[in-house]
Amino acid sequence: MVSLILAQSALEIVPKELENHPSVTSYCEKYSKKPSETLLDISWHFAAMKGIKNEIMRGRPDLIHLALLSMCNTPLYARKKLQVYVHTINDNVISLRNGVRPPKSYHRFQGLIEKLFKNGNIESDNLTLLELEHLTFEDLIKKIKPKILIGFSTQGENSTFEKAAEIITDNSCIVIGGFQKGHFSKEISKNFDHLKSLHENSLETHVVSSRILYEYEKTIFM
Amino acid sequence: MVSLILAQSALEIVPKELENHPSVTSYCEKYSKKPSETLLDISWHFAAMKGIKNEIMRGRPDLIHLALLSMCNTPLYARKKLQVYVHTINDNVISLRNGVRPPKSYHRFQGLIEKLFKNGNIESDNLTLLELEHLTFEDLIKKIKPKILIGFSTQGENSTFEKAAEIITDNSCIVIGGFQKGHFSKEISKNFDHLKSLHENSLETHVVSSRILYEYEKTIFM
Repeated sequence: MVSLILAQSALEIVPKELENHPSVTSYCEKYSKKPSETLLDISWHFAAMKGIKNEIMRGRPDLIHLALLSMCNTPLYARKKLQVYVHTINDNVISLRNGVRPPKSYHRFQGLIEKLFKNGNIESDNLTLLELEHLTFEDLIKKIKPKILIGFSTQGENSTFEKAAEIITDNSCIVIGGFQKGHFSKEISKNFDHLKSLHENSLETHVVSSRILYEYEKTIFM
Repeated sequence: MVSLILAQSALEIVPKELENHPSVTSYCEKYSKKPSETLLDISWHFAAMKGIKNEIMRGRPDLIHLALLSMCNTPLYARKKLQVYVHTINDNVISLRNGVRPPKSYHRFQGLIEKLFKNGNIESDNLTLLELEHLTFEDLIKKIKPKILIGFSTQGENSTFEKAAEIITDNSCIVIGGFQKGHFSKEISKNFDHLKSLHENSLETHVVSSRILYEYEKTIFM
């Protein structure tokens, strides 16, 4: 089993200070939602988000949805060889029960994650499918206790997906940024045993996750 | 340059005979839309779609969105080595202008494709970004004139992504099913020069597209 953390993910509920911004209230009226139970989304709340702290690293639930689908539809995940976590920019951690697949419809995904932020978990037939805890990245690493922690960033040492997959062994933990632009904070990067750059250009989160999991799959299934 | 066709894609406007079904009208009222300008979507129109012809191969705009993002965020596409087409179950063909990237937000993608079905094209600065034509799969192949046509299906000859990528040469055309379940129709499969099975189990469209394009990239960029 390997673990994969989407770190500093751009996933959060509309923060209190933006609840009364017109771009938030008009969205919430249109869809009959409460701001305190609505995911922050730059494609709707752009005007409200202008100038907020860490603006470019926030409000992208669409990226997290894409990245999760790229991981949770792989043979690796189907064979329960992959444990997935979403660590958010506000130090919340979502743990997916082994084998649980997020809805492909964005609308359903959004509803599910909003419910998770409200209730702290999503249950079905007495099983916890998704769980939300307030945990820092370091706390999460202490919980997972990986043998090695491998981060991917254009700031890392030059490598390729193929070569990087070779250092992933059982009980490794892979870390990919869950944001559109920018780099891991020091609080995160200081924990890495390896930091690898997989391509000369910055790649989308879902492109990195699908390629590295595919290469890792090849090392264990073929 | 290679071409990729998502064939028989589950992408269409709500058909006339379903326009007055309660699951369609209530959705359209909620979002202030006309049924004749709304994408058929099983996650909203499930009740209306029950028992329609080819039910399992229709109404999945979310799958097409995911698949397009998996293709259009690759270095291959960024370097203009990939031409993308969406052939739909009703023989419409969407051509993407070389390098155009679909919106990552599903809501924006939906609006764009609905506008495309209404107007026949999407323009910006006098450039046609997306174009919709009524074309059969065979007509599209005559237009592309590929050197070889390679389809992927669990009904094909056993292969791997790596091996299949080796037969993709410049001016090849790759064909992946743009549907959740089922197989290519005879009208489509009779055109293939090769039909390859890439995995023992059926894989999601976006998983197939991301892996095969990655393996092909390796053959030309490394």
